[in-house]
Amino acid sequence: MPRVVVNVMPKPEILDPQGKAVTGALKRLGFQGLSVRQGKRFEVEVDGEVTPEVLAQIEQAADTLFANTVIESYEVVTD
Amino acid sequence: MPRVVVNVMPKPEILDPQGKAVTGALKRLGFQGLSVRQGKRFEVEVDGEVTPEVLAQIEQAADTLFANTVIESYEVVTD
Repeated sequence: MPRVVVNVMPKPEILDPQGKAVTGALKRLGFQGLSVRQGKRFEVEVDGEVTPEVLAQIEQAADTLFANTVIESYEVVTD
Repeated sequence: MPRVVVNVMPKPEILDPQGKAVTGALKRLGFQGLSVRQGKRFEVEVDGEVTPEVLAQIEQAADTLFANTVIESYEVVTD
């Protein structure tokens, strides 16, 4: 089935406590020079074809359901 | 700074309660024919160049810290 991916990340100006925790854990485990931001990945399987209408639907779903657009930004990626 | 992305998704044979919840919410909101699996996205910023050694480090970090490889699979993507 055709797949569309929606990536949701905390906005750059927003603190990212999960990413901070992971970055700290990496340092403690001996990984140097890596800094992490953590977000979400939604793999959307589409029944049928990925038409512009379907993409617009997914864009709307991302805006209303997948991402909290006050603190997160999203991008819709067709595989 | 150069960036490497690690995508972590629940394995196909694993139930994905978050994805199921999102899929159900989409249906209730009137979005038809969409089925969602939810995973995590880690954006790793690297100090310096992305050498094969750095990539191997990130691969190891993904395996030990980012993903629970019992139930999740990951892929390392260079932007």
